Amino acid sequence: MTRDIGFEAALEAARTGLAEGGIPIGAALVRGGEVLAVGRNERVQNGDPIAHGEMSALRAAGRQATYRDTVLYTTLAPCAMCAGTIVQFKIPRVVVGEQRTFPGELELLRSRGVEVEVLDDPRCVAMMEAFQRDQPALWAEDIAE
Amino acid sequence: MTRDIGFEAALEAARTGLAEGGIPIGAALVRGGEVLAVGRNERVQNGDPIAHGEMSALRAAGRQATYRDTVLYTTLAPCAMCAGTIVQFKIPRVVVGEQRTFPGELELLRSRGVEVEVLDDPRCVAMMEAFQRDQPALWAEDIAE
Repeated sequence: MTRDIGFEAALEAARTGLAEGGIPIGAALVRGGEVLAVGRNERVQNGDPIAHGEMSALRAAGRQATYRDTVLYTTLAPCAMCAGTIVQFKIPRVVVGEQRTFPGELELLRSRGVEVEVLDDPRCVAMMEAFQRDQPALWAEDIAE
Repeated sequence: MTRDIGFEAALEAARTGLAEGGIPIGAALVRGGEVLAVGRNERVQNGDPIAHGEMSALRAAGRQATYRDTVLYTTLAPCAMCAGTIVQFKIPRVVVGEQRTFPGELELLRSRGVEVEVLDDPRCVAMMEAFQRDQPALWAEDIAE
Protein backbone atom coordinates (compact mmCIF):
# COMPACT_ATOMS: atom_id res chain seq x y z
CA MET A 1 0.00 0.00 0.00
CA THR A 2 1.74 3.12 -1.27
CA ARG A 3 -0.31 5.31 1.00
CA ASP A 4 0.64 3.48 4.14
CA ILE A 5 4.34 3.27 3.42
CA GLY A 6 4.63 6.98 2.63
CA PHE A 7 2.44 8.15 5.44
CA GLU A 8 4.10 5.99 8.06
CA ALA A 9 7.50 7.25 6.91
CA ALA A 10 6.30 10.84 7.25
CA LEU A 11 4.91 10.16 10.71
CA GLU A 12 8.13 8.51 11.81
CA ALA A 13 10.10 11.52 10.59
CA ALA A 14 7.83 13.83 12.61
CA ARG A 15 8.42 11.74 15.72
CA THR A 16 12.16 11.81 15.14
CA GLY A 17 11.97 15.59 14.98
CA LEU A 18 10.02 15.74 18.21
CA ALA A 19 12.58 13.55 19.97
CA GLU A 20 15.30 15.96 18.81
CA GLY A 21 13.49 18.90 20.37
CA GLY A 22 12.20 20.04 17.01
CA ILE A 23 8.82 20.84 15.51
CA PRO A 24 7.07 17.49 14.91
CA ILE A 25 6.17 17.65 11.24
CA GLY A 26 7.39 15.07 8.76
CA ALA A 27 7.07 14.31 5.08
CA ALA A 28 7.95 11.64 2.55
CA LEU A 29 8.26 11.66 -1.22
CA VAL A 30 7.11 8.43 -2.83
CA ARG A 31 7.52 7.09 -6.35
CA GLY A 32 6.10 3.81 -7.56
CA GLY A 33 5.30 2.62 -4.07
CA GLU A 34 8.80 3.26 -2.77
CA VAL A 35 9.92 6.00 -0.44
CA LEU A 36 12.35 8.19 -2.33
CA ALA A 37 13.17 10.53 0.56
CA VAL A 38 11.92 11.61 3.96
CA GLY A 39 12.28 14.90 5.76
CA ARG A 40 11.32 16.61 8.98
CA ASN A 41 11.05 20.17 10.14
CA GLU A 42 14.56 21.26 11.13
CA ARG A 43 14.05 24.87 12.14
CA VAL A 44 15.32 24.16 15.65
CA GLN A 45 17.90 21.51 14.84
CA ASN A 46 19.60 23.43 12.00
CA GLY A 47 18.41 26.98 12.57
CA ASP A 48 16.87 26.74 9.13
CA PRO A 49 13.55 28.53 8.67
CA ILE A 50 12.85 27.02 5.25
CA ALA A 51 13.36 23.44 6.47
CA HIS A 52 9.73 22.48 6.83
CA GLY A 53 9.13 18.74 6.57
CA GLU A 54 8.08 18.84 2.92
CA MET A 55 11.03 21.04 1.95
CA SER A 56 13.49 18.80 3.77
CA ALA A 57 12.13 15.75 1.96
CA LEU A 58 12.47 17.45 -1.41
CA ARG A 59 16.00 18.56 -0.59
CA ALA A 60 16.89 15.04 0.52
CA ALA A 61 15.55 13.64 -2.75
CA GLY A 62 18.03 15.78 -4.65
CA ARG A 63 17.66 16.74 -8.29
CA GLN A 64 14.84 14.91 -10.06
CA ALA A 65 14.03 15.02 -13.76
CA THR A 66 10.33 15.06 -12.92
CA TYR A 67 7.96 14.88 -9.97
CA ARG A 68 4.88 14.05 -12.05
CA ASP A 69 5.09 10.42 -10.97
CA THR A 70 5.49 11.16 -7.27
CA VAL A 71 3.21 11.54 -4.25
CA LEU A 72 4.11 13.77 -1.31
CA TYR A 73 2.98 12.69 2.14
CA THR A 74 3.00 15.12 5.02
CA THR A 75 1.75 14.89 8.58
CA LEU A 76 0.27 18.42 8.56
CA ALA A 77 -1.47 20.56 5.95
CA PRO A 78 1.19 22.35 3.86
CA CYS A 79 1.78 26.05 4.51
CA ALA A 80 2.05 28.59 1.67
CA MET A 81 5.77 27.87 1.24
CA CYS A 82 5.27 24.15 0.92
CA ALA A 83 2.11 24.51 -1.17
CA GLY A 84 3.90 26.86 -3.56
CA THR A 85 6.72 24.36 -3.81
CA ILE A 86 4.34 21.50 -4.60
CA VAL A 87 2.82 23.65 -7.36
CA GLN A 88 6.23 24.67 -8.68
CA PHE A 89 7.56 21.12 -8.72
CA LYS A 90 4.34 19.88 -10.36
CA ILE A 91 3.76 17.19 -7.75
CA PRO A 92 0.30 15.88 -8.74
CA ARG A 93 -0.89 14.41 -5.45
CA VAL A 94 -0.47 15.25 -1.77
CA VAL A 95 -1.63 13.14 1.17
CA VAL A 96 -2.05 15.17 4.36
CA GLY A 97 -2.14 13.69 7.86
CA GLU A 98 -4.42 16.35 9.29
CA GLN A 99 -5.58 19.91 8.92
CA ARG A 100 -7.36 20.37 12.25
CA THR A 101 -4.46 22.09 14.02
CA PHE A 102 -3.37 24.18 11.00
CA PRO A 103 -5.55 24.80 7.94
CA GLY A 104 -2.68 25.19 5.50
CA GLU A 105 -3.14 26.11 1.87
CA LEU A 106 -5.17 23.20 0.59
CA GLU A 107 -7.36 25.46 -1.55
CA LEU A 108 -4.31 26.94 -3.26
CA LEU A 109 -3.17 23.41 -4.06
CA ARG A 110 -6.56 22.36 -5.39
CA SER A 111 -6.93 25.55 -7.42
CA ARG A 112 -3.70 24.61 -9.22
CA GLY A 113 -4.86 21.11 -10.00
CA VAL A 114 -3.14 19.22 -7.19
CA GLU A 115 -5.10 16.26 -5.83
CA VAL A 116 -5.26 16.55 -2.05
CA GLU A 117 -6.33 13.81 0.33
CA VAL A 118 -6.70 14.51 4.05
CA LEU A 119 -6.42 11.43 6.28
CA ASP A 120 -7.48 13.13 9.52
CA ASP A 121 -5.14 10.81 11.35
CA PRO A 122 -5.66 11.01 15.12
CA ARG A 123 -1.95 10.37 15.83
CA CYS A 124 -1.02 13.48 13.86
CA VAL A 125 -3.73 15.56 15.52
CA ALA A 126 -2.66 14.49 19.02
CA MET A 127 1.02 15.15 18.31
CA MET A 128 0.43 18.67 16.97
CA GLU A 129 -2.12 19.58 19.65
CA ALA A 130 0.40 18.64 22.33
CA PHE A 131 3.21 20.51 20.57
CA GLN A 132 1.19 23.68 20.03
CA ARG A 133 0.15 23.62 23.70
CA ASP A 134 3.66 22.94 25.02
CA GLN A 135 5.65 25.20 22.65
CA PRO A 136 3.42 28.10 21.63
CA ALA A 137 6.28 30.51 20.89
CA LEU A 138 8.09 28.05 18.68
CA TRP A 139 4.90 27.20 16.85
CA ALA A 140 4.13 30.89 16.30
CA GLU A 141 7.64 31.40 14.92
CA ASP A 142 7.28 28.51 12.51
CA ILE A 143 4.09 29.93 11.01
CA ALA A 144 5.36 33.55 11.18
CA GLU A 145 2.72 34.76 13.60
CA MET B 1 19.59 53.81 -0.87
CA THR B 2 18.05 50.62 0.44
CA ARG B 3 16.93 49.62 -3.00
CA ASP B 4 20.32 49.88 -4.58
CA ILE B 5 22.22 48.08 -1.82
CA GLY B 6 19.84 45.13 -1.82
CA PHE B 7 19.53 44.87 -5.54
CA GLU B 8 23.24 45.09 -6.20
CA ALA B 9 23.85 42.40 -3.58
CA ALA B 10 21.32 40.15 -5.30
CA LEU B 11 22.90 40.77 -8.69
CA GLU B 12 26.37 40.05 -7.34
CA ALA B 13 25.10 36.77 -5.86
CA ALA B 14 23.64 35.79 -9.25
CA ARG B 15 26.97 36.50 -10.92
CA THR B 16 28.79 34.43 -8.30
CA GLY B 17 26.45 31.56 -9.07
CA LEU B 18 27.10 31.88 -12.79
CA ALA B 19 30.86 31.82 -12.22
CA GLU B 20 30.42 28.60 -10.24
CA GLY B 21 28.59 26.95 -13.14
CA GLY B 22 25.24 27.47 -11.47
CA ILE B 23 21.95 29.04 -12.41
CA PRO B 24 22.45 32.82 -12.25
CA ILE B 25 19.71 33.97 -9.92
CA GLY B 26 20.45 35.85 -6.73
CA ALA B 27 18.56 37.40 -3.87
CA ALA B 28 19.11 39.56 -0.82
CA LEU B 29 17.10 40.13 2.34
CA VAL B 30 17.31 43.69 3.62
CA ARG B 31 16.27 45.26 6.92
CA GLY B 32 16.58 48.93 7.71
CA GLY B 33 18.81 49.61 4.74
CA GLU B 34 21.26 46.84 5.63
CA VAL B 35 21.72 43.55 3.86
CA LEU B 36 20.82 40.81 6.32
CA ALA B 37 21.66 37.90 4.02
CA VAL B 38 22.27 37.04 0.39
CA GLY B 39 21.66 33.84 -1.52
CA ARG B 40 22.00 32.35 -4.95
CA ASN B 41 20.49 29.42 -6.76
CA GLU B 42 22.54 26.37 -5.72
CA ARG B 43 20.78 23.55 -7.55
CA VAL B 44 23.95 22.69 -9.43
CA GLN B 45 26.50 23.51 -6.75
CA ASN B 46 24.77 21.61 -3.92
CA GLY B 47 22.41 19.31 -5.81
CA ASP B 48 19.64 21.10 -3.94
CA PRO B 49 16.41 21.65 -5.87
CA ILE B 50 14.87 23.94 -3.26
CA ALA B 51 17.89 26.27 -3.20
CA HIS B 52 16.52 29.02 -5.38
CA GLY B 53 18.12 32.40 -4.75
CA GLU B 54 15.32 33.64 -2.51
CA MET B 55 15.25 30.42 -0.50
CA SER B 56 19.02 30.46 -0.03
CA ALA B 57 18.91 34.04 1.22
CA LEU B 58 16.18 33.17 3.74
CA ARG B 59 18.11 30.13 4.89
CA ALA B 60 21.25 32.21 5.27
CA ALA B 61 19.37 34.77 7.35
CA GLY B 62 18.52 32.03 9.85
CA ARG B 63 15.66 32.22 12.30
CA GLN B 64 14.02 35.63 12.45
CA ALA B 65 11.34 36.78 14.87
CA THR B 66 9.61 38.66 12.07
CA TYR B 67 10.02 39.55 8.41
CA ARG B 68 7.49 42.36 8.45
CA ASP B 69 10.28 44.93 8.46
CA THR B 70 12.24 43.35 5.61
CA VAL B 71 12.44 43.70 1.84
CA LEU B 72 13.41 40.82 -0.42
CA TYR B 73 15.36 41.61 -3.58
CA THR B 74 15.66 39.06 -6.34
CA THR B 75 17.12 39.22 -9.83
CA LEU B 76 14.25 37.22 -11.39
CA ALA B 77 10.50 37.04 -10.79
CA PRO B 78 9.84 34.54 -7.98
CA CYS B 79 8.48 31.12 -8.90
CA ALA B 80 5.56 29.52 -7.04
CA MET B 81 7.89 28.08 -4.39
CA CYS B 82 9.53 31.40 -3.66
CA ALA B 83 6.26 33.34 -3.91
CA GLY B 84 4.59 30.95 -1.48
CA THR B 85 7.52 31.39 0.87
CA ILE B 86 7.27 35.18 0.70
CA VAL B 87 3.57 34.89 1.56
CA GLN B 88 4.22 32.41 4.36
CA PHE B 89 7.01 34.51 5.90
CA LYS B 90 4.87 37.66 5.58
CA ILE B 91 7.55 39.62 3.74
CA PRO B 92 5.69 42.80 2.78
CA ARG B 93 7.74 43.97 -0.18
CA VAL B 94 9.63 42.30 -3.02
CA VAL B 95 11.83 44.04 -5.58
CA VAL B 96 12.30 42.01 -8.77
CA GLY B 97 15.10 42.52 -11.27
CA GLU B 98 13.08 41.38 -14.25
CA GLN B 99 10.17 39.26 -15.37
CA ARG B 100 10.81 39.22 -19.12
CA THR B 101 12.56 35.85 -19.19
CA PHE B 102 10.26 34.18 -16.61
CA PRO B 103 6.86 35.54 -15.60
CA GLY B 104 6.90 34.11 -12.09
CA GLU B 105 4.01 34.38 -9.69
CA LEU B 106 3.73 38.13 -9.24
CA GLU B 107 -0.07 38.00 -9.29
CA LEU B 108 -0.10 35.44 -6.48
CA LEU B 109 2.09 37.78 -4.45
CA ARG B 110 -0.08 40.80 -5.16
CA SER B 111 -3.27 38.87 -4.43
CA ARG B 112 -1.90 38.17 -0.96
CA GLY B 113 -1.04 41.79 -0.30
CA VAL B 114 2.67 41.76 -1.11
CA GLU B 115 3.98 44.95 -2.70
CA VAL B 116 5.91 44.04 -5.85
CA GLU B 117 8.22 46.34 -7.76
CA VAL B 118 9.76 45.23 -11.07
CA LEU B 119 12.93 47.06 -12.02
CA ASP B 120 13.23 45.64 -15.54
CA ASP B 121 17.00 45.80 -15.16
CA PRO B 122 18.78 45.14 -18.47
CA ARG B 123 21.71 43.42 -16.74
CA CYS B 124 19.37 40.80 -15.30
CA VAL B 125 17.57 40.33 -18.61
CA ALA B 126 20.82 39.87 -20.53
CA MET B 127 22.18 37.41 -17.97
CA MET B 128 19.08 35.22 -17.99
CA GLU B 129 18.63 35.36 -21.75
CA ALA B 130 22.18 34.13 -22.22
CA PHE B 131 21.75 31.43 -19.58
CA GLN B 132 18.47 30.13 -20.98
CA ARG B 133 20.02 30.02 -24.46
CA ASP B 134 23.22 28.29 -23.34
CA GLN B 135 21.74 25.87 -20.78
CA PRO B 136 18.19 25.02 -21.87
CA ALA B 137 18.09 21.62 -20.12
CA LEU B 138 19.27 23.04 -16.82
CA TRP B 139 16.83 25.90 -17.04
CA ALA B 140 13.96 23.50 -17.82
CA GLU B 141 14.93 21.41 -14.81
CA ASP B 142 14.96 24.41 -12.52
CA ILE B 143 11.42 25.38 -13.47
CA ALA B 144 10.23 21.74 -13.62
CA GLU B 145 9.39 21.76 -17.30
